[in-house]
Amino acid sequence: MIVQMKPHATKAQFEHITQFLIKKGFEIKDVSSANIMVFGIIGDTKSLNPTDLEAFEGVFQVTRVSTPYKLASRSFKKTDTIIKVRHNIEIGGDQFVVMAGPCSVESYENTFEIAKAVKASGATILRGGAYKPRTSPYAFQGMGVDGLKILREVADQFDLAVVSEIMSEDMIETFEPYVDIYQIGARNMQNFHLLKQLGARTKKPILLKRGLSATIEEWLMSAEYIMASGNDQVILCERGIRTFEKYTRNTLDISAVLAVKELSHLPVIIDPSHAAGKYSMIERLSMASYAVGSDGIIVEVHPDPEHALSDGAQSLKLEKFDHMMAALRNMSAVLDKKV
Amino acid sequence: MIVQMKPHATKAQFEHITQFLIKKGFEIKDVSSANIMVFGIIGDTKSLNPTDLEAFEGVFQVTRVSTPYKLASRSFKKTDTIIKVRHNIEIGGDQFVVMAGPCSVESYENTFEIAKAVKASGATILRGGAYKPRTSPYAFQGMGVDGLKILREVADQFDLAVVSEIMSEDMIETFEPYVDIYQIGARNMQNFHLLKQLGARTKKPILLKRGLSATIEEWLMSAEYIMASGNDQVILCERGIRTFEKYTRNTLDISAVLAVKELSHLPVIIDPSHAAGKYSMIERLSMASYAVGSDGIIVEVHPDPEHALSDGAQSLKLEKFDHMMAALRNMSAVLDKKV
Amino acid sequence: MIVQMKPHATKAQFEHITQFLIKKGFEIKDVSSANIMVFGIIGDTKSLNPTDLEAFEGVFQVTRVSTPYKLASRSFKKTDTIIKVRHNIEIGGDQFVVMAGPCSVESYENTFEIAKAVKASGATILRGGAYKPRTSPYAFQGMGVDGLKILREVADQFDLAVVSEIMSEDMIETFEPYVDIYQIGARNMQNFHLLKQLGARTKKPILLKRGLSATIEEWLMSAEYIMASGNDQVILCERGIRTFEKYTRNTLDISAVLAVKELSHLPVIIDPSHAAGKYSMIERLSMASYAVGSDGIIVEVHPDPEHALSDGAQSLKLEKFDHMMAALRNMSAVLDKKV
Amino acid sequence: MIVQMKPHATKAQFEHITQFLIKKGFEIKDVSSANIMVFGIIGDTKSLNPTDLEAFEGVFQVTRVSTPYKLASRSFKKTDTIIKVRHNIEIGGDQFVVMAGPCSVESYENTFEIAKAVKASGATILRGGAYKPRTSPYAFQGMGVDGLKILREVADQFDLAVVSEIMSEDMIETFEPYVDIYQIGARNMQNFHLLKQLGARTKKPILLKRGLSATIEEWLMSAEYIMASGNDQVILCERGIRTFEKYTRNTLDISAVLAVKELSHLPVIIDPSHAAGKYSMIERLSMASYAVGSDGIIVEVHPDPEHALSDGAQSLKLEKFDHMMAALRNMSAVLDKKV
Repeated sequence: MIVQMKPHATKAQFEHITQFLIKKGFEIKDVSSANIMVFGIIGDTKSLNPTDLEAFEGVFQVTRVSTPYKLASRSFKKTDTIIKVRHNIEIGGDQFVVMAGPCSVESYENTFEIAKAVKASGATILRGGAYKPRTSPYAFQGMGVDGLKILREVADQFDLAVVSEIMSEDMIETFEPYVDIYQIGARNMQNFHLLKQLGARTKKPILLKRGLSATIEEWLMSAEYIMASGNDQVILCERGIRTFEKYTRNTLDISAVLAVKELSHLPVIIDPSHAAGKYSMIERLSMASYAVGSDGIIVEVHPDPEHALSDGAQSLKLEKFDHMMAALRNMSAVLDKKV
Repeated sequence: MIVQMKPHATKAQFEHITQFLIKKGFEIKDVSSANIMVFGIIGDTKSLNPTDLEAFEGVFQVTRVSTPYKLASRSFKKTDTIIKVRHNIEIGGDQFVVMAGPCSVESYENTFEIAKAVKASGATILRGGAYKPRTSPYAFQGMGVDGLKILREVADQFDLAVVSEIMSEDMIETFEPYVDIYQIGARNMQNFHLLKQLGARTKKPILLKRGLSATIEEWLMSAEYIMASGNDQVILCERGIRTFEKYTRNTLDISAVLAVKELSHLPVIIDPSHAAGKYSMIERLSMASYAVGSDGIIVEVHPDPEHALSDGAQSLKLEKFDHMMAALRNMSAVLDKKV
Repeated sequence: MIVQMKPHATKAQFEHITQFLIKKGFEIKDVSSANIMVFGIIGDTKSLNPTDLEAFEGVFQVTRVSTPYKLASRSFKKTDTIIKVRHNIEIGGDQFVVMAGPCSVESYENTFEIAKAVKASGATILRGGAYKPRTSPYAFQGMGVDGLKILREVADQFDLAVVSEIMSEDMIETFEPYVDIYQIGARNMQNFHLLKQLGARTKKPILLKRGLSATIEEWLMSAEYIMASGNDQVILCERGIRTFEKYTRNTLDISAVLAVKELSHLPVIIDPSHAAGKYSMIERLSMASYAVGSDGIIVEVHPDPEHALSDGAQSLKLEKFDHMMAALRNMSAVLDKKV
Repeated sequence: MIVQMKPHATKAQFEHITQFLIKKGFEIKDVSSANIMVFGIIGDTKSLNPTDLEAFEGVFQVTRVSTPYKLASRSFKKTDTIIKVRHNIEIGGDQFVVMAGPCSVESYENTFEIAKAVKASGATILRGGAYKPRTSPYAFQGMGVDGLKILREVADQFDLAVVSEIMSEDMIETFEPYVDIYQIGARNMQNFHLLKQLGARTKKPILLKRGLSATIEEWLMSAEYIMASGNDQVILCERGIRTFEKYTRNTLDISAVLAVKELSHLPVIIDPSHAAGKYSMIERLSMASYAVGSDGIIVEVHPDPEHALSDGAQSLKLEKFDHMMAALRNMSAVLDKKV
């Protein structure tokens, strides 16, 4: 950690903070020049918060040089983490994994139709929301546990894995028998209570969506919460960030995949549906997600988006999903990971 | 709600969506011109989601013209809501309310010293975190229920009210005996499960912080969640939004106060500490918050910020808080609300 | 254009604004419901500014339903515009065009070495800055007209076209003999004076970079400025937008390519170098740019980035550029456009 | 400047970059710990660009610890700069300066009516646009030099100073006889050619608006451009930044005033009209601007905003401006600067 003093900070202020740190067991390396006092702090600074040091008078700015996360970092574990789901799926290895399904589970028949179609097109994981985080209290809030049961029953018929979003730690026991992967939604990425409880109470993989305005560092810190609580099976999911641009629902930060690959060993997938919010963009964004080197995608699919109970605008029709899968398989010939 | 078709949408696509809406009981008013098909939807559109209609082929864009919230809206209730706390505090009325205290409760002695000082300087509500949402799992996570007990005990000695953040619906029973106001933090603004449970299970006021990247509409929708669940005692709190500018921790959106006053009847306060992240800016931002017409402020205070367990950089020393309160009282002479 | 009145707007306010518009020759279509007064304006609203109408008392919000640009719009011209450069290049057609070269022209030898290498690897256009918009007045500002001369001379030896950035309308005559494509930088995207002068005074293609925080609509409006001034040979270039995320220099908005393809007939390319700011990400972002359907890329290349006079961090070494070109050629087998 | 190497950087990479810097005349101070190689660069690093050093293999991140601007910095000049305009105005001193006038100059009569009114209400500087940077080429582009003449003639009758926006260095000679202050608009904040030319060719004060997405550091760097070219009479103007929030036209970054006061000696004012884009917010935002400690405001005023040729939505009617001035004068009693 590097501490930079204000232009007119006094020698006494410099002494005050450095003595404070030395007493805490850190080593200080002075890098001051004629114009400006600067020093480095050597030691395990993970528990030090830059903003705490900025409380000292005379301090201008504090910069972390080691990452605040450890278990999630590439320096801690150099090889890519590969997460196994059921007998045939590996996320983070040689497969480009496709998760597909409706935004919300609506009925057994609807889910069956979708599962059958996405399996035939090449998906291996069925997604579907049973508990929905809706912006409006007046919107459809999901089928609840009945939705989970439908997902499991249908998925088993087509040898698909199940991923579904959990919104509260109270539901862990409810979810456990039905899902293969727990999803933590973007709005709960910093619901630290949920992160800790899930980390401690399940051994199943956890799909951690990036928050709407979370930095990559904060996202990895949320993964660290889960890992530090006991579960290292974390899959990261970029789903678009909030920016000034409103033509798309969010701005897909495709470079985040590359950043995660540099900083962490965890697998990372892309959700083009929530990023774009427009079905017309999904196929091309999926192709780009594949080309950039992500480990997979999660896509919303519906046989009749106009009558979908939620997120119709971003759901692909079954035949459009099939078209997209053909395009991805086509690209398989020239890329490392295989669809 | 206004639906705008794509430039080359067909008459059949227009018929398809309008018939769909008519069957649902809505009235359609055609506003098309020679170049572009556009129509308005008349009826209770609160349950309609613009993105659902964008699932229809030929639709370009859907714009809401009525607000998606009702109970929180100024059209539903024209007069300002005034929230009473204990015997002497009214938020949203003629008082400019000052909430002050440490970021985290650290000990009885520390809390006592702070409470005594802020009371003497003119604050009426004691803030303090017992359960802390920290970005890092390795950082201090708060004293828990012991922190709540200290807050209550100390506050009672100085006739102060207590506000503290709750992070999970599991804690409602734990909090109920100790707090006068429940705080929902920025990171939980769209933890809809928590919003609903709090709305249903307490009658005490709820201080709802704006999410880091929440629009004003989303913030009011979160208030609507609480209100629709049974509790209309909601106080909004602007605490800075996330932008590209990094000199301050967040960007204080001071205009949001004026926006809320136009759109809603709920009171709104400002948290300059989290917005700026720098103690040197707090006094002036508090003065601006007062001048702009907010109903109060919530400020972090600590006798020794350098040794605070969290957020030292943005905590005011006791004498600086006192200086700030003198400045606010001074302004009282020329503003409507009184400190 | 749709005008929505405030909840408690009066009938007189409604009459006042609608009469004003009728006098201006517009037709009014009333879409009001019981709760809210709303009306559509029919006619050529391109010269009407929504914010002007918001000056009327009682008006809440004004929404444009037709695009404010015309010449740049897909509705004005349905077929893709293909821009021919020299004898062998077509931008917007079946080619995936690669522009490459140094950030700044540094010397004849350096430029020669780069041009030779990028030509051998498959690029068809040589980029290079002769006049540099640097954030700091103390940084290298470019070689000026000597840089342009070097670019032209070297490019001719390898049958490459030349693109270079122009910062002032005073330089048009200086540039005209040397460049095949004029570049307008991100910081000048709304330098309307420059847009108009270039539009009127050259017939050569203009590469218009998106501003750091320009919406897609504003970007197309800047293209419209050029086109309305007489030059319809505009190539759009997405180069990353400014967001809260700082790990990359900017956030590449890859979806913007798809948005432009929907809204406009103009070609659009991607600049991964400025978007990422990190050479390690360029190859993969270029692959994604190709897969998403853009018409090309513009990439910074340098034989010795450590000693480059500017932007070394984002410049590819010659062998890395060659590696990237091989990857793109490999993808050619399965994509429509050909490298 | 602090250079942080990648976790697995080699000793050779460390040697390579440090030797490179030593050869350039810098001193190196090693701050490495067991886990991570880090070093400080001592010397005049103003001409070093952090991104240039990131071109070296093994480098992870480079952080500047001294400011990249000098002339504009508070460390260069500790006392506040006070800019004198005509005989009676001082910006940056004890006055809270009010600049007011129409968005665009529309006619002699209109300008006369406005000037008379704002003078009577207490403004000392007349603003008005003669050359307008409009997003649309089809919108009113200003009266040109005739507008400047009107401004000057009218201002002289009421002993007001004149501020007007210049869009091109070609216009400096045209502007010089008519304006007291040159304005550089937000969209031209990084039009470095214009900054340099203005800095070199006029001695009059320059009002430099912050760009829509400019950081405070970039804004001060643009001031540095002007100052390094020979003119140190720079007034900064915060006018709102672009964020995800769309209820207001931009987000007024009121904390920027405090940041500028810490980092620089230059005066800083606020433009609430462009920030909010809504006339209903101007009075309260002006009060907040005053309370926060800015040196003044610049406000759009129009006798009949509904018929204004531009920006009607954010223009105050004359009586509302008078009401606002009364509120500000009222606050004068309790604030340091005087209206």
